[in-house]
Amino acid sequence: MERLFSARAAALRSSFVRDILKAASDPAITSFAGGLPNPVHFPAAELACAAERVLSDSAGTVLQYSSSEGLGELREWIADRYRDRGLNIAPERILITSGSQQALDLLGKVLLDPGDGVALEAPGYLGAIQAFSLYRPQFLPVPLSAEGLDTSRLEHTLRSQAAKLLYTVPNFQNPSGATYSTANREALAQLLAGREMLLIEDDPYGELRFAGEPAPSFAHLLPRQTVLLGSFSKSVAPAFRLGWVVAPPWLMQRLLLAKQATDLHSNSFSQHVLLRYLRNESLDDHLARVRTAYAAQMQAMLAAIGRHFPAAARVAPAKGGMFLWATLPEGTSTVRLFERAMAEKVAFVPGHPFYLDRNDSNDLRLNFTNAEPEAIESGIARLGRAMATLPDEAQEKRKTASRRDAKAQS
Amino acid sequence: MERLFSARAAALRSSFVRDILKAASDPAITSFAGGLPNPVHFPAAELACAAERVLSDSAGTVLQYSSSEGLGELREWIADRYRDRGLNIAPERILITSGSQQALDLLGKVLLDPGDGVALEAPGYLGAIQAFSLYRPQFLPVPLSAEGLDTSRLEHTLRSQAAKLLYTVPNFQNPSGATYSTANREALAQLLAGREMLLIEDDPYGELRFAGEPAPSFAHLLPRQTVLLGSFSKSVAPAFRLGWVVAPPWLMQRLLLAKQATDLHSNSFSQHVLLRYLRNESLDDHLARVRTAYAAQMQAMLAAIGRHFPAAARVAPAKGGMFLWATLPEGTSTVRLFERAMAEKVAFVPGHPFYLDRNDSNDLRLNFTNAEPEAIESGIARLGRAMATLPDEAQEKRKTASRRDAKAQS
Repeated sequence: MERLFSARAAALRSSFVRDILKAASDPAITSFAGGLPNPVHFPAAELACAAERVLSDSAGTVLQYSSSEGLGELREWIADRYRDRGLNIAPERILITSGSQQALDLLGKVLLDPGDGVALEAPGYLGAIQAFSLYRPQFLPVPLSAEGLDTSRLEHTLRSQAAKLLYTVPNFQNPSGATYSTANREALAQLLAGREMLLIEDDPYGELRFAGEPAPSFAHLLPRQTVLLGSFSKSVAPAFRLGWVVAPPWLMQRLLLAKQATDLHSNSFSQHVLLRYLRNESLDDHLARVRTAYAAQMQAMLAAIGRHFPAAARVAPAKGGMFLWATLPEGTSTVRLFERAMAEKVAFVPGHPFYLDRNDSNDLRLNFTNAEPEAIESGIARLGRAMATLPDEAQEKRKTASRRDAKAQS
Repeated sequence: MERLFSARAAALRSSFVRDILKAASDPAITSFAGGLPNPVHFPAAELACAAERVLSDSAGTVLQYSSSEGLGELREWIADRYRDRGLNIAPERILITSGSQQALDLLGKVLLDPGDGVALEAPGYLGAIQAFSLYRPQFLPVPLSAEGLDTSRLEHTLRSQAAKLLYTVPNFQNPSGATYSTANREALAQLLAGREMLLIEDDPYGELRFAGEPAPSFAHLLPRQTVLLGSFSKSVAPAFRLGWVVAPPWLMQRLLLAKQATDLHSNSFSQHVLLRYLRNESLDDHLARVRTAYAAQMQAMLAAIGRHFPAAARVAPAKGGMFLWATLPEGTSTVRLFERAMAEKVAFVPGHPFYLDRNDSNDLRLNFTNAEPEAIESGIARLGRAMATLPDEAQEKRKTASRRDAKAQS
């Protein structure tokens, strides 16, 4: 019966990261592998109160079928919040989705034919790679640095290969933690302006900034070509699976029809609960608490890395988001490190799956939001021990090279 | 920028029925158009209690990211309920989806390439047509009668054109209300057995039987080739967007990967609330109340039709589900009737959108679950008045024909 599969289904592969996350779910393991918010901050009592109220006020509406667009008042709340940030976005341009992941799927659905070009960051977000893969595009990886995307490499790529989309996470990127500088954003906007392509600005972590000043959104810099994604998963609760996409009007109508064909509408009970919560409580007060805690967790991880990682390891501090990106000396295998780390009961994600063309790398992703400072100290100490057990391959190579040189000279 | 659309996006058209439902949402209108459960039966207090309890017991889990498969205990609950009906289904074969609509999308994703054959009932369920349309199959409509699918027509079709899927709603079908007889199911199973194709049994209404005895599921009759879809939308609450798909193991793994790429997982807060509700309360007691009410609403509609529709209208009583299907004399335009009915402040869905090749028809769908008996009486009376204003086209045709005959004889 396997002959019944579509060509598309061949693009579906069990993910290496999924296997890692499964292994890391053992409670005996300290996991820096996932991308989970710290559950101690979930506003449980406030959400329980909101749920009770919406059900006692208007259960007939709250439990019934709803509109594919999402609740009008929730879309207005999102538009108002953008307005506070200086972005003028009409609620009609906002579609509520089942997490940002679904926004990526819907964009793939209405935009991508097999072979279409999709430029994206290297290293890049796995969820986007997975979502778009189903539509069998040609991925065009563009190197990402601490300053942002390599615009000259992107320009070079676009000269030989058209792209319909550029997928970006400009704030506290997953996996690298990098944030595009204002200058980089401006250069990117200038490069794309007037081209027949869209820039997707996926911004799940923008509200989790705990240091520095926000840089302008592409919705400012490249308004006609930017599709903006947002999410309540990191700011309120992932279980609600509520996110949104802001799209230009010509795109919105098709996205809405695709949404309707895909699942009619997103969970409207949770939309009502969320809306009531957002109205009754101060999201800003909640986020302030979360940011303070995440800043402390990030500092704890940085300090522990300083104590326990080899001196040659490089890690840039994060100004927000959920991840640190560590680069070990050239030639280090983080796949091998993962095995050693599991023996030490600590997990992380090796860097290679975030690239499209590698099966090992010397970098790794560390999540700092889902463990308390004490667990971070102990986990990083064990990870440091695991690193110490690895052969210094760079040194081995240098030795081999110098032996070879010596031989050549002899 | 419209050139950026995928070929798939061209298949997305604003639906006629969507426009009708929008028009019918005016509270001044009595609507028999939608497919909404009666909100007076939503178990609001019980769900509020379940929400409060899961949030006070284990908010850290209930609000966190969850598994793509869905909650293990919810899948076990579903498997147990099948076991009570004599169906032996392992929980591992059950994937929780965001309503059955998403199950259709996922099946389309992993199975359909452009041009693949999809056999389906005529008249057929619009949601399935919409979901599959995105994957650009060739639809193969097969006539449906009160007894079930026309197996000889299906056999004839399959002789000239292979189909990967046969999509069916064997219990209280949407739109026709028809239920396949046991003999028809057996004949269909025999026809498909051993062919390289799957039968989708979509069963959102099976629990809403208020008369007669259940006929065997295709999961009994054709176990290796049947994909079974279920939903909590009609039995508990549509707003939760929770349904499921039961698939053979070879298919399950790819469906799960597609689910993960599409939206990571379905709303797990609502899964926890639902599970707690199902454990604390008796779903059977709840369904008994709903069935009694729906039987009375169906009887009220049948009686009103007897009083107010022209004698030539044919309507078979329903034994469950949510819809009656009325057939007016040949030549009657239910598109024209819709306009007249809107003037009388009553709405229904004309029959033609449920076929793939018509732009008008003499049949119509009437929903009986979302209006109380008094509103049903008044709405059907007004619909009867609207019918009386239509020219009797059949009679006109007969007149024209007899005039022509008279002329020919003269």
